[in-house]
Amino acid sequence: MDNIKVAILGIGTVGTGTYKIIKNQKDEFPYKTGSNIEVSKILVRDKSKKREGIDENLITDSWEDIINDDSISIVIEVMGGIEPAKTYITEALKKGKSVVTANKDLIASYGGELLDLAKENKCDILFEAAVAGGIPIIRPLKECLASNKVEEVMGIVNGTTNFILSKMTDEGMEFDEALKLAQKLGYAEADPTADVEGYDAGRKIAIMASIAFNSRVKFDDVYTEGISNISAKDIKYAKELDCEIKLLGVASNTDDGIEARVHPMLIPNDHPLSGVKDSFNAVFVKGDSVGDTMFYGKGAGELPTASAIVGDVIDVARNIHFGCCGRIGCTCYKNLPIKTIDDIYSKYFVRLQIVDKSGVLASVLSVLGKNDVSIYQLMQKKKRDNNFAEIVLVTDKVKEKNLRDSIKELEDMPVVHKVSKVIRVY
Amino acid sequence: MDNIKVAILGIGTVGTGTYKIIKNQKDEFPYKTGSNIEVSKILVRDKSKKREGIDENLITDSWEDIINDDSISIVIEVMGGIEPAKTYITEALKKGKSVVTANKDLIASYGGELLDLAKENKCDILFEAAVAGGIPIIRPLKECLASNKVEEVMGIVNGTTNFILSKMTDEGMEFDEALKLAQKLGYAEADPTADVEGYDAGRKIAIMASIAFNSRVKFDDVYTEGISNISAKDIKYAKELDCEIKLLGVASNTDDGIEARVHPMLIPNDHPLSGVKDSFNAVFVKGDSVGDTMFYGKGAGELPTASAIVGDVIDVARNIHFGCCGRIGCTCYKNLPIKTIDDIYSKYFVRLQIVDKSGVLASVLSVLGKNDVSIYQLMQKKKRDNNFAEIVLVTDKVKEKNLRDSIKELEDMPVVHKVSKVIRVY
Repeated sequence: MDNIKVAILGIGTVGTGTYKIIKNQKDEFPYKTGSNIEVSKILVRDKSKKREGIDENLITDSWEDIINDDSISIVIEVMGGIEPAKTYITEALKKGKSVVTANKDLIASYGGELLDLAKENKCDILFEAAVAGGIPIIRPLKECLASNKVEEVMGIVNGTTNFILSKMTDEGMEFDEALKLAQKLGYAEADPTADVEGYDAGRKIAIMASIAFNSRVKFDDVYTEGISNISAKDIKYAKELDCEIKLLGVASNTDDGIEARVHPMLIPNDHPLSGVKDSFNAVFVKGDSVGDTMFYGKGAGELPTASAIVGDVIDVARNIHFGCCGRIGCTCYKNLPIKTIDDIYSKYFVRLQIVDKSGVLASVLSVLGKNDVSIYQLMQKKKRDNNFAEIVLVTDKVKEKNLRDSIKELEDMPVVHKVSKVIRVY
Repeated sequence: MDNIKVAILGIGTVGTGTYKIIKNQKDEFPYKTGSNIEVSKILVRDKSKKREGIDENLITDSWEDIINDDSISIVIEVMGGIEPAKTYITEALKKGKSVVTANKDLIASYGGELLDLAKENKCDILFEAAVAGGIPIIRPLKECLASNKVEEVMGIVNGTTNFILSKMTDEGMEFDEALKLAQKLGYAEADPTADVEGYDAGRKIAIMASIAFNSRVKFDDVYTEGISNISAKDIKYAKELDCEIKLLGVASNTDDGIEARVHPMLIPNDHPLSGVKDSFNAVFVKGDSVGDTMFYGKGAGELPTASAIVGDVIDVARNIHFGCCGRIGCTCYKNLPIKTIDDIYSKYFVRLQIVDKSGVLASVLSVLGKNDVSIYQLMQKKKRDNNFAEIVLVTDKVKEKNLRDSIKELEDMPVVHKVSKVIRVY
């Protein structure tokens, strides 16, 4: 029986979960992989820190201890951030050690080169945990759905913002109140920017789009817009339209290029994604043969994320046992153009205040008409503030540039008090 | 570049879909698998039949043509039924040909021996399409979630019955009317027994339970109960309890054995499975680390099923390219006991008519109490027929045997007109 030794880089929440699962599953690994799997070293910054339940003899603060240990064949990277993770992973792959990582920042920006490096060295680099935590999505895209031309990948892939929006929807909270609650419960970090502004979701969409469309999409290619300006009022109007507001990552494979974006969106109540609440994640995949599929589960947390990591470790162990590491490497064999947000077509929810006088609504609509922005639905609200009437309209599917041009024009009109909100609609 | 030749056994709906996808994906295979993949023979019963869009030169009615053709390395079996599929697959594996099949009848009864035979011959036998059509579920269970002790697998895995129940729920149809509509639209067969009585779902649950719990569960081990006695009235009462009635396959891995069963069930409206409508399928998996996950999509149809088959073909092709066929074989390395339905605990919805007289309800409740069946919820309906009062009650979680004993006792009571329905509750 082989003994496969692994090193864990970083022993925070996810590292600890990984350590626990590997310990708990000890007796199952021989049956599942043909080999024993054990943690032989754990890299930390501060060796002196007390760590409950972790074998102290495994702890080291020296990367050299790990990279020069030829008995270690798998390196699990759960430190996060670009450096030193990138250097460590690069060195590990060059030494022929396979890598399992949960590092979405790194994969979204340097996935291509790391996958190429793994191939050169006949190693695996797997990263199921980098997208949507415990939900199987990378392997389904690379394997189960490989017979499809994937047309769209869309998902709720950030639990923090989904928790905030759920609280705003179900309990009528304003954004600031919901964010504070999320921070109190540990769902949001002290600096919530990466979650709230959509950067975290953007990285996950970049990774999924690259795999789904077989063409590299980097984080910088993804348009991102966050949820900090969504108000309880917007959510109330969304409800009147039988919709929920969600922060969605959307990637589409169109005839003239790839669209990749993260922004709040109104989704109809009967869409499966609208029922995804709190810290759950879900990814919707549309393939030319399979049609609509959805993958749902916990997108973060100690054990769900570690579940995906150890699933990858089992896969690598099987590959080591069968001598077929590098069996599935980089799948980006196309070089498709990526569209800018200006060229994307969408439906839009627009909320604006206009002077409450006859003829004003007509002039607003004529500006939209002139810019080829046609109207799907319109509500003028009864309640009026300060002599202004509030208008809520939903456009047909129109070009983002045309919508932006008309909003700019509206904002310059003396009879338009304010365009309060523009949100895309599914 | 390798040329991987495949044979398709049977060219009905799913076989035709498989043929189409392999043709359409021709240019992608080299990038995805390192090899070309082409259909070189198609086995049919009647060679003379006209088949639109299928290359006639590939058609043969001789199995010997295929089994003796050493250039064929993958056999796709989409004939269905036990024989001759079992003989063909056995012969193919013995000759070192890998097999991809959508045959749930065969896998649910003979999966273990076929997987062992594949291993002996260093071949793959893959069957993603046998459960829930295009939805990736076999590979996620065998690979992505392999780090979990799976506690429960539960799903809506029969589109026909889900369509019928959706029509009964949304449009108030009775069972017979909904079945007729399903037959008219091609969702149900002329003889709908296998779908309607839960046998089809039972086969799928047997396959999923075997993989999820690493212990063989055969179709005969699965308790099955169909939907033909569900009435519009039951569905109306379920709605009053904020539930939907679905035909569910449920497999649980409990401390004293495996439970595996298919029956109608009331699920609360806020459970993700309750929103699965019409011909969609969904499988819910609960793992000790990952928590709750769900996989959703089209459970049948030409292209969704063929999507899963060609996904498996791509996997085998990669294994051939890397010389690692048989990398993941039978995963049933445990031998867990299987419980009978009598020993299963569940909540129950019971609808009964009693004589409308004081003291009768008390005597009904005392029979239940004597059998350790405690009540969670009780409704006495205002409307009365023929001097009988209708009682709807939901029990706590109780042992099936106790519930059955008390129902038997109730049926013998002169004051009980009829126990009209017993349905399990999630």
